[in-house]
Amino acid sequence: MYVILVYDIGEKRVGKMLKLCRAYLNWIQNSVFEGEITEAKLKELVARAKKIMKQEDDSLIIFKSRDQRWLDKQVVGKERMKVDNFL
Amino acid sequence: MYVILVYDIGEKRVGKMLKLCRAYLNWIQNSVFEGEITEAKLKELVARAKKIMKQEDDSLIIFKSRDQRWLDKQVVGKERMKVDNFL
Repeated sequence: MYVILVYDIGEKRVGKMLKLCRAYLNWIQNSVFEGEITEAKLKELVARAKKIMKQEDDSLIIFKSRDQRWLDKQVVGKERMKVDNFL
Repeated sequence: MYVILVYDIGEKRVGKMLKLCRAYLNWIQNSVFEGEITEAKLKELVARAKKIMKQEDDSLIIFKSRDQRWLDKQVVGKERMKVDNFL
Protein backbone atom coordinates (compact mmCIF):
# COMPACT_ATOMS: atom_id res chain seq x y z
CA MET A 1 0.00 0.00 0.00
CA TYR A 2 1.25 3.46 -0.85
CA VAL A 3 0.59 6.30 1.61
CA ILE A 4 1.02 10.03 1.97
CA LEU A 5 1.19 11.15 5.58
CA VAL A 6 0.91 14.75 6.79
CA TYR A 7 0.95 15.98 10.36
CA ASP A 8 0.36 19.23 12.17
CA ILE A 9 1.88 18.85 15.61
CA GLY A 10 2.76 21.13 18.50
CA GLU A 11 6.38 22.31 18.38
CA LYS A 12 7.40 20.37 21.49
CA ARG A 13 6.36 17.08 19.92
CA VAL A 14 7.61 17.62 16.37
CA GLY A 15 11.04 16.07 16.89
CA LYS A 16 9.63 12.80 18.19
CA MET A 17 7.02 12.64 15.46
CA LEU A 18 9.56 13.31 12.72
CA LYS A 19 11.82 10.56 14.01
CA LEU A 20 8.92 8.12 14.24
CA CYS A 21 7.61 8.80 10.73
CA ARG A 22 11.07 8.61 9.19
CA ALA A 23 11.40 5.11 10.59
CA TYR A 24 8.48 4.00 8.39
CA LEU A 25 8.26 6.39 5.42
CA ASN A 26 10.25 8.74 3.20
CA TRP A 27 10.39 12.37 4.28
CA ILE A 28 9.57 14.63 1.33
CA GLN A 29 8.68 17.98 2.86
CA ASN A 30 8.54 19.70 6.24
CA SER A 31 5.70 17.61 7.69
CA VAL A 32 4.97 15.36 4.70
CA PHE A 33 5.99 11.74 4.19
CA GLU A 34 5.30 9.13 1.54
CA GLY A 35 6.07 5.53 0.85
CA GLU A 36 5.12 1.91 0.56
CA ILE A 37 3.96 0.39 3.81
CA THR A 38 1.99 -2.67 4.87
CA GLU A 39 -1.36 -2.36 6.63
CA ALA A 40 0.20 -3.88 9.77
CA LYS A 41 3.16 -1.48 9.81
CA LEU A 42 0.83 1.48 9.25
CA LYS A 43 -1.29 0.41 12.21
CA GLU A 44 1.85 0.23 14.31
CA LEU A 45 2.92 3.70 13.14
CA VAL A 46 -0.49 5.19 13.94
CA ALA A 47 -0.53 3.56 17.40
CA ARG A 48 2.91 4.98 18.17
CA ALA A 49 1.95 8.40 16.77
CA LYS A 50 -1.10 8.51 19.03
CA LYS A 51 1.18 8.15 22.05
CA ILE A 52 3.14 11.22 20.96
CA MET A 53 0.16 13.33 19.87
CA LYS A 54 -2.08 15.54 21.93
CA GLN A 55 -5.34 14.37 20.42
CA GLU A 56 -7.14 17.66 21.04
CA ASP A 57 -4.46 19.83 19.42
CA ASP A 58 -2.55 17.71 16.95
CA SER A 59 -3.60 16.31 13.63
CA LEU A 60 -2.39 13.44 11.48
CA ILE A 61 -3.85 12.70 8.06
CA ILE A 62 -3.02 9.63 6.01
CA PHE A 63 -4.03 9.18 2.38
CA LYS A 64 -3.86 5.59 1.24
CA SER A 65 -3.70 4.24 -2.27
CA ARG A 66 -3.53 0.58 -3.15
CA ASP A 67 -1.14 1.39 -5.95
CA GLN A 68 1.38 4.21 -6.29
CA ARG A 69 0.71 4.32 -10.04
CA TRP A 70 -2.71 5.80 -9.35
CA LEU A 71 -1.02 8.91 -8.04
CA ASP A 72 0.99 11.38 -10.01
CA LYS A 73 3.33 13.76 -8.21
CA GLN A 74 4.30 17.28 -9.27
CA VAL A 75 6.95 19.22 -7.38
CA VAL A 76 7.26 23.00 -7.74
CA GLY A 77 10.24 24.84 -6.27
CA LYS A 78 12.71 23.20 -3.98
CA GLU A 79 12.46 19.45 -3.61
CA ARG A 80 13.38 18.93 0.04
CA MET A 81 14.06 15.25 -0.18
CA LYS A 82 14.89 13.29 -3.28
CA VAL A 83 13.11 9.99 -3.22
CA ASP A 84 14.58 7.35 -5.48
CA ASN A 85 11.65 5.01 -5.49
CA PHE A 86 9.23 7.48 -7.04
CA LEU A 87 8.63 7.22 -10.76
CA MET B 1 -9.15 15.23 -11.13
CA TYR B 2 -8.64 14.93 -7.40
CA VAL B 3 -5.54 16.51 -5.84
CA ILE B 4 -3.74 16.80 -2.54
CA LEU B 5 -1.58 19.90 -2.29
CA VAL B 6 1.04 20.54 0.38
CA TYR B 7 3.34 23.51 0.66
CA ASP B 8 6.31 24.54 2.76
CA ILE B 9 6.66 28.29 2.38
CA GLY B 10 8.58 31.07 4.11
CA GLU B 11 6.55 32.75 6.86
CA LYS B 12 6.29 36.06 4.99
CA ARG B 13 4.59 34.40 2.04
CA VAL B 14 2.31 31.99 3.89
CA GLY B 15 -0.69 34.31 4.07
CA LYS B 16 -0.78 34.90 0.32
CA MET B 17 -0.29 31.25 -0.43
CA LEU B 18 -3.05 30.17 1.93
CA LYS B 19 -5.48 32.62 0.37
CA LEU B 20 -4.57 31.48 -3.13
CA CYS B 21 -4.95 27.77 -2.40
CA ARG B 22 -8.23 28.27 -0.58
CA ALA B 23 -9.63 29.85 -3.71
CA TYR B 24 -9.17 26.55 -5.56
CA LEU B 25 -9.18 23.74 -2.99
CA ASN B 26 -10.42 22.71 0.46
CA TRP B 27 -8.14 23.45 3.38
CA ILE B 28 -7.77 20.36 5.57
CA GLN B 29 -4.69 20.97 7.69
CA ASN B 30 -2.08 23.66 8.34
CA SER B 31 -0.46 23.59 4.89
CA VAL B 32 -2.52 20.82 3.28
CA PHE B 33 -5.37 21.14 0.77
CA GLU B 34 -7.47 18.69 -1.18
CA GLY B 35 -10.20 18.75 -3.73
CA GLU B 36 -11.55 18.25 -7.20
CA ILE B 37 -9.97 20.54 -9.77
CA THR B 38 -9.65 20.62 -13.54
CA GLU B 39 -6.26 20.36 -15.24
CA ALA B 40 -6.69 23.94 -16.50
CA LYS B 41 -7.53 25.35 -13.07
CA LEU B 42 -4.60 23.49 -11.52
CA LYS B 43 -2.24 24.97 -14.08
CA GLU B 44 -3.60 28.41 -13.22
CA LEU B 45 -3.11 27.73 -9.50
CA VAL B 46 0.48 26.55 -10.02
CA ALA B 47 1.29 29.58 -12.19
CA ARG B 48 -0.06 31.94 -9.53
CA ALA B 49 1.73 30.00 -6.75
CA LYS B 50 5.04 30.36 -8.59
CA LYS B 51 4.66 34.13 -8.49
CA ILE B 52 4.33 34.00 -4.70
CA MET B 53 7.04 31.41 -4.07
CA LYS B 54 10.76 31.87 -3.72
CA GLN B 55 11.75 28.95 -5.93
CA GLU B 56 15.04 28.34 -4.13
CA ASP B 57 13.49 28.19 -0.64
CA ASP B 58 9.85 27.21 -0.98
CA SER B 59 8.32 23.94 -1.95
CA LEU B 60 4.94 22.92 -3.34
CA ILE B 61 3.98 19.30 -3.90
CA ILE B 62 0.83 18.18 -5.69
CA PHE B 63 -0.40 14.58 -5.73
CA LYS B 64 -2.92 13.94 -8.48
CA SER B 65 -5.38 11.13 -8.77
CA ARG B 66 -7.81 10.71 -11.62
CA ASP B 67 -10.42 9.49 -9.19
CA GLN B 68 -10.92 10.30 -5.52
CA ARG B 69 -12.18 6.75 -4.92
CA TRP B 70 -8.63 5.49 -5.43
CA LEU B 71 -7.63 7.27 -2.25
CA ASP B 72 -8.71 6.46 1.24
CA LYS B 73 -8.29 9.04 3.98
CA GLN B 74 -7.65 8.42 7.68
CA VAL B 75 -7.65 11.28 10.18
CA VAL B 76 -6.08 10.89 13.63
CA GLY B 77 -6.54 13.56 16.29
CA LYS B 78 -8.06 16.90 15.54
CA GLU B 79 -9.66 17.35 12.16
CA ARG B 80 -8.86 20.96 11.33
CA MET B 81 -11.35 21.38 8.57
CA LYS B 82 -14.42 19.32 7.98
CA VAL B 83 -14.84 18.63 4.33
CA ASP B 84 -18.31 17.65 3.28
CA ASN B 85 -17.45 16.26 -0.09
CA PHE B 86 -15.16 13.52 1.21
CA LEU B 87 -16.63 10.06 1.52
